[in-house]
Amino acid sequence: MKIEAEWMRGGTSKCWVFEGEHLDETNKDLDSLLPRLFGSPDHRQIDGVGGSTSTTSKAMILRRPADPNVDVEFTFAQVGIEEAAVDWGSNCGNCSAVVGLYAIEKGWVTPNGDNTRIVTRNTNTGQIIIQRVGTPAGALPIVPDAQMPGVVFPGYRVGLGFEDPAGKTTGKLLPTGEPADTISAGGTRWTVSMVDAGAPVVIVKAEELGLDTARFESWQAGVMLQLDTMDQIRRQSAVRMGLASTVQDAARAIPKLAIVGAPKAGDAGTGDTGDVNVMMLSMGKPHPALAITGSIALTLAASTPGTVLNSITGSEPRSTLRLRTPAGVIETWSEERDGSLLVGVDRTARTIATSTLHLPELLGSAVEPSFVSAPSDISPLNEE
Amino acid sequence: MKIEAEWMRGGTSKCWVFEGEHLDETNKDLDSLLPRLFGSPDHRQIDGVGGSTSTTSKAMILRRPADPNVDVEFTFAQVGIEEAAVDWGSNCGNCSAVVGLYAIEKGWVTPNGDNTRIVTRNTNTGQIIIQRVGTPAGALPIVPDAQMPGVVFPGYRVGLGFEDPAGKTTGKLLPTGEPADTISAGGTRWTVSMVDAGAPVVIVKAEELGLDTARFESWQAGVMLQLDTMDQIRRQSAVRMGLASTVQDAARAIPKLAIVGAPKAGDAGTGDTGDVNVMMLSMGKPHPALAITGSIALTLAASTPGTVLNSITGSEPRSTLRLRTPAGVIETWSEERDGSLLVGVDRTARTIATSTLHLPELLGSAVEPSFVSAPSDISPLNEE
Repeated sequence: MKIEAEWMRGGTSKCWVFEGEHLDETNKDLDSLLPRLFGSPDHRQIDGVGGSTSTTSKAMILRRPADPNVDVEFTFAQVGIEEAAVDWGSNCGNCSAVVGLYAIEKGWVTPNGDNTRIVTRNTNTGQIIIQRVGTPAGALPIVPDAQMPGVVFPGYRVGLGFEDPAGKTTGKLLPTGEPADTISAGGTRWTVSMVDAGAPVVIVKAEELGLDTARFESWQAGVMLQLDTMDQIRRQSAVRMGLASTVQDAARAIPKLAIVGAPKAGDAGTGDTGDVNVMMLSMGKPHPALAITGSIALTLAASTPGTVLNSITGSEPRSTLRLRTPAGVIETWSEERDGSLLVGVDRTARTIATSTLHLPELLGSAVEPSFVSAPSDISPLNEE
Repeated sequence: MKIEAEWMRGGTSKCWVFEGEHLDETNKDLDSLLPRLFGSPDHRQIDGVGGSTSTTSKAMILRRPADPNVDVEFTFAQVGIEEAAVDWGSNCGNCSAVVGLYAIEKGWVTPNGDNTRIVTRNTNTGQIIIQRVGTPAGALPIVPDAQMPGVVFPGYRVGLGFEDPAGKTTGKLLPTGEPADTISAGGTRWTVSMVDAGAPVVIVKAEELGLDTARFESWQAGVMLQLDTMDQIRRQSAVRMGLASTVQDAARAIPKLAIVGAPKAGDAGTGDTGDVNVMMLSMGKPHPALAITGSIALTLAASTPGTVLNSITGSEPRSTLRLRTPAGVIETWSEERDGSLLVGVDRTARTIATSTLHLPELLGSAVEPSFVSAPSDISPLNEE
């Protein structure tokens, strides 16, 4: 059995892009088919197209929907590596950036003007993402030349605009009804903002934690000493936002927690400055970067009067927001259009390979681990 | 620019297989072209087909030579990951296993009988490798079903026979002229065997080192205490074998050093037993596995009277040798045919994808690291 797929880079991810029709033709259950194509279960994915890391074990399934208002409907699949399983629970912002480019390259959408607009809908989350692909003079450049942080090679510029992202999880931008709330944790009362846009996020001010935000190293060291308190804040926020019924039940992944600080002169050294300094906690620990969904939440929080982030960025209208993280500055943009709010980021994307994947054997043929005599990842005959 | 390639698994490696003609047509220098296709320099290889590990950043270039005695000539390229460079200095035994299968799949060789014989020549080393691909009833099975340790999915059975592998580096199987020699190191005199077949290897008996080989854990712990002495033995061997003019000049990679011990009842616990227990040192440290070239050297050493390995395995003729390593048992085989000696191992291989790689921009377009604001591997917008 052979299956067509394009291998594309979207932002800082590599994604295998399938057309839904082609997968339908296989008559295979995707929860079995995708892991097999990717070489899972195997932490090296040595017999498949997976790249043995979470950012390179991703699939996108694209369809042209009946709905005339949507150009492309897409489903994101996080393909397990050590487990032959697929997680359909969320979207990937980086992989999203391949959809508009794919639609143009395959002729699903005709380039139009210097920027071609493609309306995409993510089925995992229901989120409409308006994509804008640079098509100067009505065509994709032969040689893509757009750059982005974190990727050394150029690609095509893709703007990802999340349409009306507020409240997708809880129904409201401010799930508690207030732009700021007080939470008691670790013997202190904290002023926090709970927002739901892109993803649910609770925002804490670095100042209240007594953190020195001049340098991310010292900031991070300070955060490490207060992780328990941060987790208490996060769990109480989960309950306040209606995401969990008790603090014990709060999920580890949501809400995310962001610590924000006012920028100071000299913060960045020789690097980029931002409108706000941000440190996210991911799975309980300081993370050097931001998920795209997290950047969307912070952007709406910044423009909402009364939030702890708005007290840093101010209320003057702004079309872009520069979020400075340990890994660099992320610029998000916002615009109103036809009564909708678009909040987004720019990425680059390109097609790496046009492929036909071979699925030579029946599914379920992985041998039992006991057959594989090599412990862990080592084959008895290794590389030269 | 678009370039055809097959993505194949050979043994425990993933290899991108190109036809030399297709690469010639690009008129590009392979030392620039291959790294760009693979996404190097970038330790994640996120914009190319590389897999960001040494076993998944490999290319094979195949040609049909004028020489009527050789079916396929192939060149192995180890493509740099963080460096935009190619190492042409050695062959890869695992990737070698794709060559015969490729030749059959592309119709270069017609399957013939239950095993199809393909004569291949590696240009990096000059080594002839006779490949035997299982073709029951004169055809590749539709569903490949051969298993090998270290790979959870089945593939096609490929036997790799190294033709007359002795002396490829130094000109002689026994570079010193003797099956065993004495070397003084660490205040002691050691009996060692220096052999050159597949790769130059110096062999030391675990017994002489006072090592308990009953369990690999304790064996390894014992070796760790004598690494300095091992390195002295290795360096003196380099000089004796003519690989270096002084012990200071000895390369870190050759000769390899193998410590061998006699198998004892109960060695393997519930696992596989072998004809000899082996621990290799790689880059100065105990390694759980064996390179294919190292297994070839040990196989010839075992069959050569007077070597320290022969004293364990004995001199009765044997067609297979089972080398037990911490990562499992490797079985090598030997046979005489038409006056040549073939020594080899069995692997499995399969084609993962038939691809057209896109090279959209001019070479040399990687941005300077200073442009990439993200430190190390983190993009400021990471994955969701």
